[in-house]
Amino acid sequence: MAKRQIFLMSSSAVHGYEYLQHAKNDITSFFQRNNVSRVLFIPYALTDYNGYTDKVGGVLQRWGFRCDGIHSFPDPVAAVRDAQAIYIGGGNTFLLLKTLYENQLIDPIRDRVLKNAIPYVGSSAGTNVATRSIQTTNDMPIVYPPSFDALNLVPFNINPHYQDPPVDGTHKGETREERINQFHQLNSAPVLGLREGTTLLVDGEKAQLVGMFKSRLFQQNQEPVEYEAGSDVSFLLKSKE
Amino acid sequence: MAKRQIFLMSSSAVHGYEYLQHAKNDITSFFQRNNVSRVLFIPYALTDYNGYTDKVGGVLQRWGFRCDGIHSFPDPVAAVRDAQAIYIGGGNTFLLLKTLYENQLIDPIRDRVLKNAIPYVGSSAGTNVATRSIQTTNDMPIVYPPSFDALNLVPFNINPHYQDPPVDGTHKGETREERINQFHQLNSAPVLGLREGTTLLVDGEKAQLVGMFKSRLFQQNQEPVEYEAGSDVSFLLKSKE
Repeated sequence: MAKRQIFLMSSSAVHGYEYLQHAKNDITSFFQRNNVSRVLFIPYALTDYNGYTDKVGGVLQRWGFRCDGIHSFPDPVAAVRDAQAIYIGGGNTFLLLKTLYENQLIDPIRDRVLKNAIPYVGSSAGTNVATRSIQTTNDMPIVYPPSFDALNLVPFNINPHYQDPPVDGTHKGETREERINQFHQLNSAPVLGLREGTTLLVDGEKAQLVGMFKSRLFQQNQEPVEYEAGSDVSFLLKSKE
Repeated sequence: MAKRQIFLMSSSAVHGYEYLQHAKNDITSFFQRNNVSRVLFIPYALTDYNGYTDKVGGVLQRWGFRCDGIHSFPDPVAAVRDAQAIYIGGGNTFLLLKTLYENQLIDPIRDRVLKNAIPYVGSSAGTNVATRSIQTTNDMPIVYPPSFDALNLVPFNINPHYQDPPVDGTHKGETREERINQFHQLNSAPVLGLREGTTLLVDGEKAQLVGMFKSRLFQQNQEPVEYEAGSDVSFLLKSKE
């Protein structure tokens, strides 16, 4: 069995960095050690496929990788089957998942990543759909997908753009932690809160946190735990529902 | 045709006020002028129905109204049919809408409010479900409802807990306004952003903003517009999809 290669970013934009630059070294070496020279980009989380592909593709090209938008291929399933690597960008998670279902890409992507071990990069919404479900997205439900079940490349949930509550905040809407606690009143899967600038890197049965900040792990009926960048969190890959 | 009586709050909690106290005068006079002495409370947005009903009911009782949780009746549809007024509290919008569908309450509540003009009070998630759909909720999709279509007591969307972007913010997740703009890339319904402490009051074909702050109205392909508290926004009731 080939070893899955998965790189899940909290976000593409990080305060103080140009677009994607915070992850330049990690993405470059992730692709290089997997012998990737061209990347299939899936822009379904936004509506301007060309503009979005140009934006991400421009960065990847400067780093030495070719990048093609999946919408430029006549058959998206075939494009996935032929891909050397898949990169799903952020935007609206509901729109992204609905479009993946409409194009019947859930199983093909899952097979490529889990059976053929082609590298997967996700950012924000692209990270949400890589997990077991989109139930811990921060996005508005602007369209109705046929299910909240997602690619299930990892058997737990991630909350990207994880945010600590503001000190002395006056807003009374639920904090991110309160929202995740609501999830855990009805669901048992762990939720990894990835702060912006932080990535989960999966190599087969090993999972590690990389980036600039700690991550916060929420488990049902347990106090949340902070994990430093560099921590081994392989135990999450054994999560059962 | 009886005139619908609808009171949609952004939130129950407002900075600097005890729970619900910011709306005490408005809710009290709303119920009194509609001859309401007892209120049917629907606690489905949270999981602790008794605790939630006690919390809201305790406040209403101090104001002179009896309050019963819908879960204390053997038949929730009959409870709606016999209700003098309906109050749906906040929590998780997806859980709330799913439970309304499971208990087959969508049409009965809609009929009571639109045909029999019994007063409806909503707060946060209870405000979301009163509109045409829950597509502009801020909540996490912790459960999968059979549809995002909601009670449609008013033919547009509301974003409760509306928040302006923080000045000098470093967080790169979408602002509330950006999320609503994503909604408008794919949906044409107006979205009324209700800041905490603000309420939309509907009396038949008239709609007015009440409370402490301006509200922000988003319409597809238009610049957002701020409306002062007290503004007449009856034109929103004529929204067409």
